Amino acid sequence: MFNRPLHGGNIAWAAALAGCSPDAILDFSASINPLGPPESAIAAIKSHLPNLKAYPDPDYHQLRASLSAVHQVPPDWILPGNGSAELLTWAGWELSELDRVFLIVPAFGDYWRTFKGFNANVVEYPLLSAAGEVVNLEFLDGKKQTLSSFNNGLLLNNPHNPTGKLFFQEAILPLLEMFALVVVDEAFMDFLPPDREQSLIPWVSEFPNLVILRSLTKFYSLPGLRLGYAIAHPERLQRWQAKRDPWPVNVLAAAAAEAAIADRVFQQQTWNWLQVSGIKLFQGLAELPGLKPYESAANFLLVKSAVSTSLLQEKLLKESQILIRDCLSFPELGDRYFRVAVRWEKDNQRLITELAKVLSKF
Amino acid sequence: MFNRPLHGGNIAWAAALAGCSPDAILDFSASINPLGPPESAIAAIKSHLPNLKAYPDPDYHQLRASLSAVHQVPPDWILPGNGSAELLTWAGWELSELDRVFLIVPAFGDYWRTFKGFNANVVEYPLLSAAGEVVNLEFLDGKKQTLSSFNNGLLLNNPHNPTGKLFFQEAILPLLEMFALVVVDEAFMDFLPPDREQSLIPWVSEFPNLVILRSLTKFYSLPGLRLGYAIAHPERLQRWQAKRDPWPVNVLAAAAAEAAIADRVFQQQTWNWLQVSGIKLFQGLAELPGLKPYESAANFLLVKSAVSTSLLQEKLLKESQILIRDCLSFPELGDRYFRVAVRWEKDNQRLITELAKVLSKF
Repeated sequence: MFNRPLHGGNIAWAAALAGCSPDAILDFSASINPLGPPESAIAAIKSHLPNLKAYPDPDYHQLRASLSAVHQVPPDWILPGNGSAELLTWAGWELSELDRVFLIVPAFGDYWRTFKGFNANVVEYPLLSAAGEVVNLEFLDGKKQTLSSFNNGLLLNNPHNPTGKLFFQEAILPLLEMFALVVVDEAFMDFLPPDREQSLIPWVSEFPNLVILRSLTKFYSLPGLRLGYAIAHPERLQRWQAKRDPWPVNVLAAAAAEAAIADRVFQQQTWNWLQVSGIKLFQGLAELPGLKPYESAANFLLVKSAVSTSLLQEKLLKESQILIRDCLSFPELGDRYFRVAVRWEKDNQRLITELAKVLSKF
Repeated sequence: MFNRPLHGGNIAWAAALAGCSPDAILDFSASINPLGPPESAIAAIKSHLPNLKAYPDPDYHQLRASLSAVHQVPPDWILPGNGSAELLTWAGWELSELDRVFLIVPAFGDYWRTFKGFNANVVEYPLLSAAGEVVNLEFLDGKKQTLSSFNNGLLLNNPHNPTGKLFFQEAILPLLEMFALVVVDEAFMDFLPPDREQSLIPWVSEFPNLVILRSLTKFYSLPGLRLGYAIAHPERLQRWQAKRDPWPVNVLAAAAAEAAIADRVFQQQTWNWLQVSGIKLFQGLAELPGLKPYESAANFLLVKSAVSTSLLQEKLLKESQILIRDCLSFPELGDRYFRVAVRWEKDNQRLITELAKVLSKF
């Protein structure tokens, strides 16, 4: 009835396989913060319903002022978009016009959409060794001479999805000297508390070839809202703005975003929850036979499995109505990896218990 | 404090000039249906707030099925977008790749955004004669030979903004033989009841070079929501889809759209209201000295004025807190034209009364 989903979170497919209602599925496949959406964001949407009768401000003046205050970057260095996916369209277009684009793989599927759409010449760089170990960006060291002599671009995901690997600022900064354009997708960066985050936002003013993409989707549990933003040199953002439509963010999304980024309580609660729950889930998975979770800076864990994960996924759905994210859509990973979101502790505990049961029958 | 707005509806600027609160301005500048938004659309948004935790369906299956039923076109011939402005980006791109694009002027300002963004070679065709009479599309007759020998595109607005002129199907159909690509923006077509509308939607299946753009903004008073759709050959829509992001419409906008297009009561009320109020406003304006309204098929009237309309606009704001749309952003029209939306009858009557007062002092 339903095709196997390529992207995470296709609950309808999972429910059909599990033989239950979609509501009954315990979904670990979508890496969404279980604490959200913040009530402040929902309240803001409700209070802005009368504003639907007016066009959004094409300058998104208030939203950019709020983001400016949060990130300590002038407002004209910030461009809100219809999810970071919309901004990836324009970033991907500029990357595709370069001689080559270097892409760290495995990579988020939507990166391929924009590269294929604009005929990019993509060069893949594997982040996992043949033995399955996460390597560092140093594989680009010693290539400075070669790389700098071409107009190359780089698209990087930090923290990296699906491995959860966090690249430190010092590892990325040298790359800004080698590449004509570096786009860093920081969709999961806000899961790190301020004293541990490694955002490159403080460096945009020094590097006109640096673009940061941010999203409200994961941290604020608002994938249905579509709100992201780019931080980069104003000339580049004006170039994108000149091509795209003037009102890409609707008034409800803009209002929700302003409320969410100001919600310090929600942010602190999320950091408190993830610090404890992330480690516990990691430990629980590490103790199961044949499973090896990777250390993660984000709200999900990549797990290497001794058994087929598509079989594991099917058994978990049918026997426990639990959905894990297989990694078949990442060709570099294939059938021996899966990804799980960190959820509330009782859900995480249920995942570990049910995984143990299913694994014992392999 | 505020710059003069280039687009209609900048209430903040008007309120500052009028010396009143924005709420006190009676706004005739934005051509938005005063009956909306439909309550059904607002209710749909509220009931879908829990769905913000999930990504929108990238196929927008349900919304396309509903639009398919309304327009009697298969779902894969329909592409929803973030307002018709987002779809104009992709249509404008394809038009810009042709040798030349013919544009009927005066034209909606956002058409120029996409043509400038993609470096189109634009040829302007004036819809008004030197004497200010609306001409027909026959000015393109006799040019068939010349036009067909190049790869030309045409962007047409039907009914036309700001004149309100309705082009009949028979006037447009011959153009489909002359142009490689014809994009018809029907943003105001739904203001015509079914027995009078002249949409080219029934012709898309016969002409792969025809694209129709539709919008929920005007008829349903939802400019803040951002919901439009294109109707065209599936191959063309798939080409756009491959470039743009997968989720351009948020879940609240998709839900509101489904509810609105199914709201037959709202649609009938709008047709009933406009049929009466439009004629009365036309007659009232025609009786004022020095004013000549143009016959309009939409919910607005273009008015030729013997006196400067920027002066008229200023006086109406300061003395009556009424905002009319000057036409300075249409270079072909300049200072002797203004545009007013049709509103509730008591508002229209107040406009006529206050215009009479102000005009008597010129």
